[in-house]
Order: sequence, then C-alpha cells, then structure tokens
Amino acid sequence: MFAAGGLGVRVAVLGTGLIGGSILLRLREAGLDARGWDPDPQTRRHGRDRGVPFADTPADAVRDRDVVFLCGPLRTLPDTLAEVAGVVGDDCVLTDVGSTKSAVAEAAARFGLTHRFVPGHPMAGTERAGLTSAVAGLFQDAAWVLCPAPDGELTRFRALAGLLADVFAARVVPLSVPVHDAVVALSSHIPHLLAGALAGGTARAPSRPAVVGLAAGSFRDGTRVAGAPSRRTADMLIANRDFVLRELGLVENFLADLTAALRTGDAAALAGHLGEARALRQELFRPAAARSDHDFPAAGSTAELDFLLRLGGQGGWIERITTDGPTARYTVRRPDPDPPDDDA
Amino acid sequence: MFAAGGLGVRVAVLGTGLIGGSILLRLREAGLDARGWDPDPQTRRHGRDRGVPFADTPADAVRDRDVVFLCGPLRTLPDTLAEVAGVVGDDCVLTDVGSTKSAVAEAAARFGLTHRFVPGHPMAGTERAGLTSAVAGLFQDAAWVLCPAPDGELTRFRALAGLLADVFAARVVPLSVPVHDAVVALSSHIPHLLAGALAGGTARAPSRPAVVGLAAGSFRDGTRVAGAPSRRTADMLIANRDFVLRELGLVENFLADLTAALRTGDAAALAGHLGEARALRQELFRPAAARSDHDFPAAGSTAELDFLLRLGGQGGWIERITTDGPTARYTVRRPDPDPPDDDA
Repeated sequence: MFAAGGLGVRVAVLGTGLIGGSILLRLREAGLDARGWDPDPQTRRHGRDRGVPFADTPADAVRDRDVVFLCGPLRTLPDTLAEVAGVVGDDCVLTDVGSTKSAVAEAAARFGLTHRFVPGHPMAGTERAGLTSAVAGLFQDAAWVLCPAPDGELTRFRALAGLLADVFAARVVPLSVPVHDAVVALSSHIPHLLAGALAGGTARAPSRPAVVGLAAGSFRDGTRVAGAPSRRTADMLIANRDFVLRELGLVENFLADLTAALRTGDAAALAGHLGEARALRQELFRPAAARSDHDFPAAGSTAELDFLLRLGGQGGWIERITTDGPTARYTVRRPDPDPPDDDA
Repeated sequence: MFAAGGLGVRVAVLGTGLIGGSILLRLREAGLDARGWDPDPQTRRHGRDRGVPFADTPADAVRDRDVVFLCGPLRTLPDTLAEVAGVVGDDCVLTDVGSTKSAVAEAAARFGLTHRFVPGHPMAGTERAGLTSAVAGLFQDAAWVLCPAPDGELTRFRALAGLLADVFAARVVPLSVPVHDAVVALSSHIPHLLAGALAGGTARAPSRPAVVGLAAGSFRDGTRVAGAPSRRTADMLIANRDFVLRELGLVENFLADLTAALRTGDAAALAGHLGEARALRQELFRPAAARSDHDFPAAGSTAELDFLLRLGGQGGWIERITTDGPTARYTVRRPDPDPPDDDA
C-alpha cells in the first residue's frame, strides 16, 4: 500500500469530465505520476495538448497504478469497476465519485471487490461540465465522502483518505453507504424535488404570469435548481429513489405540522415550528469546528471503524492521517455535539 | 384630485420604517411637500435631524394632504385608516403598503372608504428594518401592486399610479385584492413554508449533523428564508392563511406527480414533470416586455378596469399615465402572451 501524503503514488483517472478532470489536474499540479483516460478522443487530445498524459484504453491507463479514480457516469460504474479490477493488482485502491453509493457498493460486493473498492463522493460544483471546465483547486475545503468497508478493512481507506486530505486539501467525511445516501437525499435530492414542486405548481396556477411578474427573492431561491436539466435531475432522483422517498416523509410531516398550525391560526405553534427550522438553518453558519487527534493500532480495529462512522455522522471530517510505526493517528474536526437551542 | 406627475402634491407618510422611510425620502428628494409621522419619538427626532419634516401626531401629519401612505404594521392598518379618514378631505387618496390586502380592503369597505382607499403593496426588500436603513431609490424598477376599486372609480387609482410611476420609477402592477393575495401566496408565502419544511424536516432527521456538514448549494438556497425571524414569518402566513392553504394545494399536487413518477422509476414521466417546472423557472428571466399605449375616457369606464386587471394578471405593469383633456392614456409593458413551451 502507498504511503499517506501521496509521494510516489501512481494514479489513473478514468473519465475526465469536470470532476475527473479536476482530480487529474490537481494530481499533476502536485507532482504525482497521474494519467487519464476518457471515452471521447477529443477530450484525450485536449488533455494531451495541456501536457497531461492520456492513455488510449482504460487497461493502458490503469496498468501499474496504486490508485484508480472511476469518474464515468453512474450507470457505467459497475462494468468499469469489474474491468479495472481484472487488470490491476490486489493492492491497488479503487474508488469512484458517483453521487449515490448503494448501487455501486452492491456491485462491488457482487464482484467480491468490497475490500478493494472505497466508494467516494466529492461534494463539488456541477453547474459546468467537461475537461475544459476542470480546475485543480475544485476540491479545496470541499467535503469528500469516503465509505470505509463494513468489515473494518481500513488500510486502503486510510491511504486514500490521506491522499485526499494531503493532496486535495479536501475534508474527508467518513460515512457508511446507507447513511451517505440518506444524507444526500436531504442535502441535495429533496431540495431539487421541492424546487420542482414550487415551480411546477406555479406553472399550473391560474395566476401564473402574475406570479412570475412579482416573484420575490424567496421564490427565486426556492426554484433555482428547478432550472437544472430535467433529465439529469430525474436520473439523479431515481438513482437514490428509496432514500429520497423515505427522507421526504420527514419533510412532508414537518410541512403537515406547519399547515396544521396555520389552519387553526395558532401563531405561537406556527412560530415554534418555524423556530425549529430556523435553528437548523443557523447551524449551516457555525464557526469552524475544534480539532482533535485520535490514535488507533495501525493493524486496524472495529473501534477505528466505529470512530470513523461516528465522526462523519456528527458532521465531522478528517483533516490528516499519519502512520507512525504501530499507530495510525487521525487529526479530525467536528462541530459542537450540542446543536443550538430550538427556540425561535 | 392632484395631477399625475406629482408636481405640487402634498403627501404624508405614517410609519417611517424601511418602507415608509424610503417612500418619504424619495418624495423629499423629488422636491415634493412631504412630511412623516412615526409612533417612535426617536425615529421622529432622527428624521428631523436629517432635515425631513415630522409631525408629532398622525392628525397633524395628514391635515391638508393630497395623499397619505399608511406604512404601519398590518394589524394597525384598519384603526389608522379610520382615524385618518376622519381628518382628511374626501379628495385625499389613502393607500397602504401591507403584504396582504384582503383584511385591510374589508376594513375599508366596512368603514365606507372603498372609494377613498387604494390598497397597495410595493415588492421591495425587507431584510433590514427602520428609518436608518431607508433609501430613496428602494422602489426604482420594483413592482408596486395597486388594487383599483371594484366599482370602477379610477380617478384616485390613476393619480396614485401616476405618482408611483413618475416619482418612484416603480412598475405599477394593477391586481384585484383576491388575485394579489393568491399571487403573493405563491410568489412569497409558500416559498417560506417549503423552506421551513426542508429545514425543519432535516432538524428531525437522525442524520441531521451530517446533512448540515454536506449541505450543498441546493440545500442552502432551499432553506434561505427559513432563517427569517420565526414570529414575523408566522404572522405573514396567518395574515394570508386562506390563499396560502389553497395555492399550496397546487404545489402539493405537483409534488405528488413527481413522487408518483419517482416511485415507479419512470424517468421519462419524471423528466417531463421537471420540464414543466423548468419552463416556469426560465420565464423569470424573460427579456423586457414590449411597450404599448392604451386610451380610455378620462371619466372612467368598466373597460378601463377590465384592461387594468387583465394587464396585471398577464404579468404586465403601468409605466406612465397621462391625462389629456377627455382622454387618459396608459403606457404599459407586458410579457409575451404565450409562455415558452413546456418541453424538458
């Protein structure tokens, strides 16, 4: 296994759109031995023109690599994973950047690759697309979820997490696969559904043109992501269907509480519920979290896995991993365990 | 009745917070005879320090005025309206700036003041508060709803609309009282409910801290107005309760369509619904509307009232009103009658 810190690590990136391209550019900028591959010949040519090595086939790209980033579309990941695993050695760390993790993790388990594959999801902008939009600094200070193997095999997780923290300056957030998918349902997918419902409900309103004419800031903010490409949003929602529908229940129940108080004109109850919502909103602007160090046996332990999943579940992240002989040290940050009061 | 254009008009503004204060400052800046009153002695002092005339009582402020803007809190408007109407002459135009119109219009009818009171609602920022935040340019290019009297008495409406267009450079949007309240339910109040539901549902989620940690742009935009003061939002929603609950049905029905397609994994149907939503979102960014002139007998007619309500309902607005002998001419802008296609 390669050492944390990234020195001497050999990397391949398959699929060099905005995310994969930005990964590749940052690896090269940091002086690592990194090469790319993309199914589009023009993208490969554009990459070479920028001085970045590109292979002509996935097999050529991944041969002799220590880490392979799978950055193609969600639906291609299971096939690419199987193909790459057949070419690289058992020590090579495989990871992906897809926006949901259940399907690809299930595929990895089906192929017997759970111990070699660390599911990942960098939370970085996707407004633009393509290698031409890629920038090396895209992941600096961004959250980058990694899912440690449920059996506690953490060597590959640690190596990859260290690379992401050291080379990309990302905030590595450890989450289990189902927790990740539940979290992104609320943090990203359900906001798209609500924006669609507000814009779509208005589209069918008799007063539609007047609403457009008077649209206030709240309407503009509340419908922004309804402007995203419809098919892309539909695919994203369907890929996380079960979690989206389950977590949507929480939002619908809260809306029912709000409308019940509104219907009876109970201003105190309504303000109380809105106060709960406001407290959550204010948590988004908490000051930076406190730093702490945590040591574990380098050989691995279930205590380490428990620690990691608790850290991510608390909203914390890994800032650095150092391995010194028999000890693996995590430097982490996490927010206050007690969220602010729910008072309005 | 005073002439459109504002020359020589005498105005009073009761309640000089952000909205009333900005109205007063612009009237003074335009060289009009305008004075203010506010229940807070410190505000009156601050106004006088800035060289703006302030009266010590509402009665002193409104005596001999041609127009009175009632800019106090929503719940105080009926009492203030009755008080002011007892002091000023029958020719004086009374208007308000409250965010819902049904209650104050009903109060005006109860007092027999429908022909003297023109309900109004400028759509201008309310993030800050108080005379110290007021700025003369607040209403430039902003929509300012005015509700013409349902009996077609349009002399006062025309005089006030002309003043708003000429002096404030506002886009005067004529709407009936119930249409206004239905429109703001969708354009402003329901976005607050949905933001509250998203933030509040997340507040109750087991994964709450992790969602906060991974909150993407869609979550931040979708919860922004959940950060507004809870009691103020509750009062706003309750003041427009019937329309909010009715229009919310449209949004809930659309959400049900989205979730039905999601549940069955029907990507084409889901993308189709999202395409409807996207088309509405894109309408917010239509290029400026075409200008046209429309003449009516200055004596007033039901055709003029019909024209005004249709204009506002189409998302159009009044840019200028000129009266030349027996003719009242409206210069208006309105968007294309055909909204863009609903294709995804």
